[in-house]
Amino acid sequence: MDRLQERIEEAATLIRDIVLRTPLLENDALNDELGLRVLVKAECLQKTGSFKARGALNFVLRRGEAPDAHFVGFSSGNHAQGLAYAAHIVGARATVLMPASAPARKIAGTRAFGAKVEILTDFFADRARRAADFVAAGAILVPPFDHEDIIAGQGTVGLEVAAQAARRKLQPDAFFVPASGGGLLAGSASAVRHAFARCRIVAVEPHGFDDFARSHAAGRRLTIEAGASTLCDGLMSPQPGEIPFEIVKTLSPDFDTVTDGQVTNAVRILFERFNLVVEPSGAAAFASLLSQANAMQGATAVVVVSGGNVDQSLFTRLLSEPSSHI
Amino acid sequence: MDRLQERIEEAATLIRDIVLRTPLLENDALNDELGLRVLVKAECLQKTGSFKARGALNFVLRRGEAPDAHFVGFSSGNHAQGLAYAAHIVGARATVLMPASAPARKIAGTRAFGAKVEILTDFFADRARRAADFVAAGAILVPPFDHEDIIAGQGTVGLEVAAQAARRKLQPDAFFVPASGGGLLAGSASAVRHAFARCRIVAVEPHGFDDFARSHAAGRRLTIEAGASTLCDGLMSPQPGEIPFEIVKTLSPDFDTVTDGQVTNAVRILFERFNLVVEPSGAAAFASLLSQANAMQGATAVVVVSGGNVDQSLFTRLLSEPSSHI
Repeated sequence: MDRLQERIEEAATLIRDIVLRTPLLENDALNDELGLRVLVKAECLQKTGSFKARGALNFVLRRGEAPDAHFVGFSSGNHAQGLAYAAHIVGARATVLMPASAPARKIAGTRAFGAKVEILTDFFADRARRAADFVAAGAILVPPFDHEDIIAGQGTVGLEVAAQAARRKLQPDAFFVPASGGGLLAGSASAVRHAFARCRIVAVEPHGFDDFARSHAAGRRLTIEAGASTLCDGLMSPQPGEIPFEIVKTLSPDFDTVTDGQVTNAVRILFERFNLVVEPSGAAAFASLLSQANAMQGATAVVVVSGGNVDQSLFTRLLSEPSSHI
Repeated sequence: MDRLQERIEEAATLIRDIVLRTPLLENDALNDELGLRVLVKAECLQKTGSFKARGALNFVLRRGEAPDAHFVGFSSGNHAQGLAYAAHIVGARATVLMPASAPARKIAGTRAFGAKVEILTDFFADRARRAADFVAAGAILVPPFDHEDIIAGQGTVGLEVAAQAARRKLQPDAFFVPASGGGLLAGSASAVRHAFARCRIVAVEPHGFDDFARSHAAGRRLTIEAGASTLCDGLMSPQPGEIPFEIVKTLSPDFDTVTDGQVTNAVRILFERFNLVVEPSGAAAFASLLSQANAMQGATAVVVVSGGNVDQSLFTRLLSEPSSHI
C-alpha cells in the first residue's frame, strides 16, 4: 500500500506537465436537492477525453523516450486513445486493436494521434491473440489495467482528489468510482484512502457485468459469461485484473451495480447540472451515487466521472429519453 | 488600470472559496490540426453554468452579509442565475426580471436558488422600468455589467488565466473574449494584459450586435438598432456599459463578429473535442478564434468559453447540423 502510494506520487511528477489537473466540480442547487455534498472529479475533461491518458502516459514515459519503440494495445476505445496519445508524446509508433463495435468517435480519436487502428471482431480473445503477434515481433504491449505503472498512473486521479479536497477543507465520506478491470479503482481508491483513512469506497459496475463484485465476494477472480448487454462499452471487462484484484482486497470497498436506465438518467443530469458531456461508462459511478443519496444525507461524496467520448447520435438519444429521478 | 487590478485581486480573495477555479483545457490533436495552441478557459463549468456568478458574488459580498437585503436584477439568464446564487449564498432575497424569450433552463436555474422570477416582455426598457420600481421600494440593484464590483468579479477569470498560463510557462499571444455589455471583457482582459503586456485582446460580438466595436471606433457609446437576430441570447446588449467602455479604450482590443453558422460549428467542436456543453453565446469567442487560426500559425491563444446554459432541444439541434470547418 505504501509502495503503491509512492508509485502514484512518482507517476504524478512524471505526467504532471502533460495531462490536465481536472476540476472537482460542484453544483449547489443539486447538493440542496439531494441533501448531500457531491463533488464531481471530471475526467471527461482530461486529454483524450478520459482518465486513460494518465496510465498509458506513465507506462510509456517509464520505458524511456524511445522513438523507435512500437507500442501495441487492445481496447474498446478510451485506453486506445490514451495509448495513442502517449506514443504521440514520445514520438513512438502505436498500433491499437479495437472491436468492430467500438464507438466511431473513439476510433477517430485514436487515429487522430497517428496510431494505426486494426478493427477486429468483438471477441476479446481475437484482440489478445493479434496483440501477441505484435509482441512476438518486438512491440511493447501497453496493458489496459493489469500493470503497476498503469495502476499508478490512474491513481493520480485519487491523488488530485485528495489535494483538491484538502484545499477546500473537505473530508469525503465516500468515493464512487467505476470498476471494470480495476486499474482506476485500485489506483485512485488507494490514494484517496491513503489521505482519508475512513472514506468509504464504492466500486460501480454495470448490471450483468459485476465480475469484480463477485470475484471479491468469492475471494478469487471469476470470469463473467458473455451474454448481458450494457450501454457502458468501457466497463465490459470479463474479469478483474490480477494486480488490481489484490489491491482492491485490501481496500474492502462496497460494490454496486447500475442499470442502463440509471446510467441514462445520470448522463442527462450531468448535462443539465454540470454542462458536461459524459459517456455511459463515465456516468456509472454518478448513477450509483444518485441511487444511494437518500441513505447518505449530510455526507460529502466524491464521484469519478471517468470519460466523455460518446457518439453524438447516442448522446442526443440519451438526453431525450424521459427521466425518472431529480 | 492598477486600481482595477487591485480590485480584481480583492475580488479573487473574496470569492475564492465559493466559486470554482475553472480549468484551462487543451486538446493536442486539435492544436496540431489548427497549427496553434488553444487553451479553453471553461467558464461553462463555473457554478451557475457561467462566469456571471463571479461578478454577482463580488457585488453582493462587498455589500456585507445582510439577510434582510433584497437584491434585484434584470437579465436574459446568466446574470439572473449569478445574482440568484449570490443572494442564496448570503441568505438574502432576490427578484430577477427576465424576458419571455429567456431559455427555459436559465429560468429554472434562477428559480432553483430560491429567487423570485418575473417574466416581462422582450423589451429591455420594460425590465429596467420594473427594476426601478423595486429599487424605489428599497431593493439593491445588481447591475449586469456597468459597475466596478461586477467588472472586478468577472476580472477574476483573467487573473486565473494569468496564473494558470504562468504555471505552464505559457506566454499567450492572444486572448479571445465575448463582449456584450463589457463586464467580462473589461475585467478579464485587463487582468490578462496586466500579466502579459503584449497579449492581443480580441473582443467578439455576434453579427448584427457589434455595438461595442462600433462604439470603440466612434469614440463614444452607440446604441444598436433592434432588428437583427442571433443565437447568442447572452450577447444582445444594445450598448456598451459606460465603465467597461472607458476601460476597454485603454486596452485597444481588436474586434470581431461571428455568424450563427460559425457559432453552431464552434458549439459542435467544443462538444467533440472538449466534452463541453456550451451555449451559443459561450462559443462565440471560440468561433472567432477558429476563423483566425490560419493567420495565427504557431501562436498560443486563450479563449474564454463563457457559459453553458443551453436548452437540450437547441443543443441537440446545433450538434446535428452539418458542419463546415474542422
